[in-house]
Amino acid sequence: MLPSDKLNFKTIEWTGDHLKVLDQTRLPEEEVYLDCYGVEEVASAIKDLKVRGAPAIGIAAAFGVVVGMFNQNLQNLKEYEKRLDHVILTLANTRPTAVNLFWALKRMRMVVEKNKGEKLSRLNQLLLQEAILIHEEDKRMCKRIGEFGANLLKDGDTILTHCNAGALATGGIGTALGILYTAFWQGKKIAVFADETRPVLQGARLTVWELQQQGIDVTLISDNTAASVMKDKKIDCVIVGADRIAGNGDVANKIGTYNLAVLAHFHKIPFYVAAPSSSFDFTLSHGKEIKIEQRSPEEVTHWFGKRVAPEGTKVYSPAFDVTPAELVTAYITEDGVKDVVNSKIKA
Amino acid sequence: MLPSDKLNFKTIEWTGDHLKVLDQTRLPEEEVYLDCYGVEEVASAIKDLKVRGAPAIGIAAAFGVVVGMFNQNLQNLKEYEKRLDHVILTLANTRPTAVNLFWALKRMRMVVEKNKGEKLSRLNQLLLQEAILIHEEDKRMCKRIGEFGANLLKDGDTILTHCNAGALATGGIGTALGILYTAFWQGKKIAVFADETRPVLQGARLTVWELQQQGIDVTLISDNTAASVMKDKKIDCVIVGADRIAGNGDVANKIGTYNLAVLAHFHKIPFYVAAPSSSFDFTLSHGKEIKIEQRSPEEVTHWFGKRVAPEGTKVYSPAFDVTPAELVTAYITEDGVKDVVNSKIKA
Repeated sequence: MLPSDKLNFKTIEWTGDHLKVLDQTRLPEEEVYLDCYGVEEVASAIKDLKVRGAPAIGIAAAFGVVVGMFNQNLQNLKEYEKRLDHVILTLANTRPTAVNLFWALKRMRMVVEKNKGEKLSRLNQLLLQEAILIHEEDKRMCKRIGEFGANLLKDGDTILTHCNAGALATGGIGTALGILYTAFWQGKKIAVFADETRPVLQGARLTVWELQQQGIDVTLISDNTAASVMKDKKIDCVIVGADRIAGNGDVANKIGTYNLAVLAHFHKIPFYVAAPSSSFDFTLSHGKEIKIEQRSPEEVTHWFGKRVAPEGTKVYSPAFDVTPAELVTAYITEDGVKDVVNSKIKA
Repeated sequence: MLPSDKLNFKTIEWTGDHLKVLDQTRLPEEEVYLDCYGVEEVASAIKDLKVRGAPAIGIAAAFGVVVGMFNQNLQNLKEYEKRLDHVILTLANTRPTAVNLFWALKRMRMVVEKNKGEKLSRLNQLLLQEAILIHEEDKRMCKRIGEFGANLLKDGDTILTHCNAGALATGGIGTALGILYTAFWQGKKIAVFADETRPVLQGARLTVWELQQQGIDVTLISDNTAASVMKDKKIDCVIVGADRIAGNGDVANKIGTYNLAVLAHFHKIPFYVAAPSSSFDFTLSHGKEIKIEQRSPEEVTHWFGKRVAPEGTKVYSPAFDVTPAELVTAYITEDGVKDVVNSKIKA
């Protein structure tokens, strides 16, 4: 049994004939699952952020190819390939900046490229196998990150986390939160402080919900309370996920991560980044090369359609920030715990 | 002319026969003024946060005594004193933790105590004079803080601020924001980054609104963007207000202030606290002695009545944090710029 089977919700599930995804836009109020029988439904779920988190998007897209190719009554390879192009394009057009999306779609296309001599029904089976494999690989990646990370946690530890690097963002138990689940299942008594994570509140909406499901002790704080919590409460470590890690170890992650790294440094608290090795981008030698995308000003100026800042307010709202490698105590990957400063990461 | 006369709004105004207050709960959407002819109206305005900020509350309460004593048709000193007790109690019961409220009410009571031989109509005139004096003192305090602080700012500077220590929180041009107004009116080109200041968003709602009124270049950020802004933008200094300052220089202020102080320290950016000398509480030798009040969890878990965090979410939401004196570059008071580390403050 994989640890993700212990969770009482499934972010993404292949039912045997269709894809089920947990609609994250309805959380935490309602746990609603979407049944996706066609590629358009999967594409909408990704586009509308019903499924989110880079690994989860990749897995959903892989199954999106499967449901897009099934039950099409295609007559020959030419028709099959034409349909495949359409399906992949439909999925690729959902979230143009999600690297895992393109990576998964490329893997799915390669299955067809390498097996052109097979029957079309066999090609469909191979696509399904590949999607299941992508999902299983992700589950195992999360499991291993969880195990390596849990070794760093002691009974009684209090951990601070940011955003949602959990089961909701992956096909398994998550990266940062996977470590917390694993330690908890090992019988370690842990307590968690979760940043609400403005502007989109993934911490308040998703991380608290996830951890509550398992009975893990979690306390929600507004982001600007982190420093006070580090000073006044016993925080043993900070664990966050990563969107992308440059070759020198600089970490791009949700806005506010760098904030926590500086605070952890000042309070002499270990700062861990949990991420699969696929998040390391060695084409980038330095975090400065990572492009910082700006989010919509309305996420800061409005709440559920209600204006909270005056008209004409100028907003600076980068989607993520870059934490320099010097502030990272260690990187927790599926290959083990690595300290980039000692160059172990490249070994 | 006092600098506060340059503002195109008045937080608190004595019209000649009644008190007018700007309803801050309607900002930034509407600029609505409340006409208060009786003590109950003033008490409600304070209780319902229509007027907020420690100095502003004190001033409103002083005028609350005035409108509470006027037009009462009282026959003798005994009746006058009985009515005064009732008026003061009504105002004192609004915000039990606001120090300035009790300080102002005490000053008003002393006026009657010291002038018991006077006619009742004369007592009313003396009360009005005292309320006007409290207001004027506050305006002058703000003016002087503004002047001392503006000397620290250069043309082209970019300043980061938190919460609202502005004209809306005082009877004058504010403390932290008073410095920005003064520098701006001196012709210095300045740019301001304003933290939105969760959970109550005083930065987004009030600080942005105030500075926009004057045409000061202000950019709103979510609180967790401050570190990124310090690293990627040129921030020349941080200026914040203070709720209370212990004898050793430790500063209690809106939650997130300590956060900024640590970040400023790490980025080698001056961190200034702007506050009247009355904010220094020498009965407290250390910041640890300052009681930290917890705010309502709903401010974090709900938005305009809509739940954003799951039911049963545990919340840690201290109203303010304590910044140790070591992280404060200087205190900007109406008596000058002081460096507590060098013990100038007690001199």
